[in-house]
Amino acid sequence: MTEIIPIGTGSAVPVKERGFSCVALRRPELALLFDCGEGTQLRLLHSDVKLSRVGAILITHLHGDHFFGLMGLLATMSLLHRDTPITVVGPAGLRDLVQRMPGLLPEELTFEVDFNELEHGHGRIMVLDGKGWRISASPLDHGVPCYGYRYEEEDLVGTLDVERARQLGVRNPRDFGRLKAGETIDLEDGTVVEASAVMGPSTPGGVFSYVTDTRPCPAAVDLALDADILYHEATFADELADRAEATGHSTTVDAARIALEAGAKRLLLSHFSARYRRFDELVSEARSVFPNSEAAVELSRYQLQPEAETIESN
Amino acid sequence: MTEIIPIGTGSAVPVKERGFSCVALRRPELALLFDCGEGTQLRLLHSDVKLSRVGAILITHLHGDHFFGLMGLLATMSLLHRDTPITVVGPAGLRDLVQRMPGLLPEELTFEVDFNELEHGHGRIMVLDGKGWRISASPLDHGVPCYGYRYEEEDLVGTLDVERARQLGVRNPRDFGRLKAGETIDLEDGTVVEASAVMGPSTPGGVFSYVTDTRPCPAAVDLALDADILYHEATFADELADRAEATGHSTTVDAARIALEAGAKRLLLSHFSARYRRFDELVSEARSVFPNSEAAVELSRYQLQPEAETIESN
Repeated sequence: MTEIIPIGTGSAVPVKERGFSCVALRRPELALLFDCGEGTQLRLLHSDVKLSRVGAILITHLHGDHFFGLMGLLATMSLLHRDTPITVVGPAGLRDLVQRMPGLLPEELTFEVDFNELEHGHGRIMVLDGKGWRISASPLDHGVPCYGYRYEEEDLVGTLDVERARQLGVRNPRDFGRLKAGETIDLEDGTVVEASAVMGPSTPGGVFSYVTDTRPCPAAVDLALDADILYHEATFADELADRAEATGHSTTVDAARIALEAGAKRLLLSHFSARYRRFDELVSEARSVFPNSEAAVELSRYQLQPEAETIESN
Repeated sequence: MTEIIPIGTGSAVPVKERGFSCVALRRPELALLFDCGEGTQLRLLHSDVKLSRVGAILITHLHGDHFFGLMGLLATMSLLHRDTPITVVGPAGLRDLVQRMPGLLPEELTFEVDFNELEHGHGRIMVLDGKGWRISASPLDHGVPCYGYRYEEEDLVGTLDVERARQLGVRNPRDFGRLKAGETIDLEDGTVVEASAVMGPSTPGGVFSYVTDTRPCPAAVDLALDADILYHEATFADELADRAEATGHSTTVDAARIALEAGAKRLLLSHFSARYRRFDELVSEARSVFPNSEAAVELSRYQLQPEAETIESN
């Protein structure tokens, strides 16, 4: 039931049709925001994402179009008397920038902000987890400290076939629990019951990868491995590859190559340069490399695992 | 030809229908912004106010809903390669908050930001002027340092009646110039020609007063004296007068009383609490005290002096 909701798909220079960078991930019990460009709190009002449900905000880097909305969002949460803590993950220095703003000191807010500042190093590190999910981060290649994020859900355990277990002789309620946990049971009569004999197949958890702003790099592929949705910047069309390289960005084709190499299932393109008002050609370029490419549409809801949900709803 | 264009009429808690505080004043040669709440640069894209024409930004106080849009707006101006200086007027401390943000140090911007920081004192002081206009500021009563602004245009000099001047004997081209400047001319034959004899009536310059956030106070009346448009906060309805007093705000009736006492011509109400989704009753309350009251409508264009412009267009 996890949904991805693009909130802003523009890049640094604003255009009328798009917001600054933000994408929401919505689970039944909470929402996560990736980046928080200026105006995010205003655009969220037009989405189904309630401010009160936002449990964490993960910032990629300290360029204004990716975090200038964070201060106002936290201020509003306080005005609305939020009392549950929120986690903010982002590059070192973010905490200081936020807390210098009037009204955002810890003692001024109605809730706790738990900052998790990332130091630029190498490789992927765990940065956040919750019930049934976790998020890791890797440094990208943007010229300033910048992190891509990978959200992974635990596999959903299959259903216990109670009838079959009884037939095999299982009676003790605790044994049913141990089978559900994947353990093997030795019954008193010497029968060995393996979990796989009574448990239905597990459903792989969903994977969402958020990769922006960056030149194509190995970390992007690593973050996107087997992702259900790779949400990747495509600031420029292929013909501006030189400009992408010079400014630390990716083209449509770069993004598609990352998706292909990583074995991602679906590619959502975002962070479009202000020069593009139509997406047809951008999407065509990406599809020539990775067919399941689309331009992310603001305020649309993308199911992270559409197949899994179809099964559930049957 | 001066126009007032409300950009955001909400207060601190955002609602779907309104933006955070900002109002633009547009002259033929430049635009001025009063306050710059989050999202101002995005909302300006939906107005006729071009970012490149904004010559100055005047901030009332350092609550986020009045200035969190300033950082992004300056960053965007730099991305667009602005090369003309801009003036930012606001409470002491504003400069430091802005310049700590990544990308906003003087050496990082493509243009100069001339900060004019106000120290909280008493009385009205001049803070900015341009060709044919000037702006003064007075401390208001909001609990934190907060300034109201008064924009005043010079009177428009009338037209010289050249025929009449010739009949009176004026010949020297320099004498025509002196008459236009209001001087008295002594001709060689002893004739004295006063400017008033040959100059048409002058047109009074327009006055725009921006008063937010504040309890009703003498400074508000002083700022609004004879204003063509008084743009005044009305955060609360009259029944919440206690809450307005407690939070340093005005009610509809407070705003109307200021307009009445100041002899303003027109009152535009703004800074509405998120609790109000309709304005009918708020406006009715104000009109019961000051009939020419309206709720400011975002992105509408209000002529500062509609009568003067009618004359001009004849």
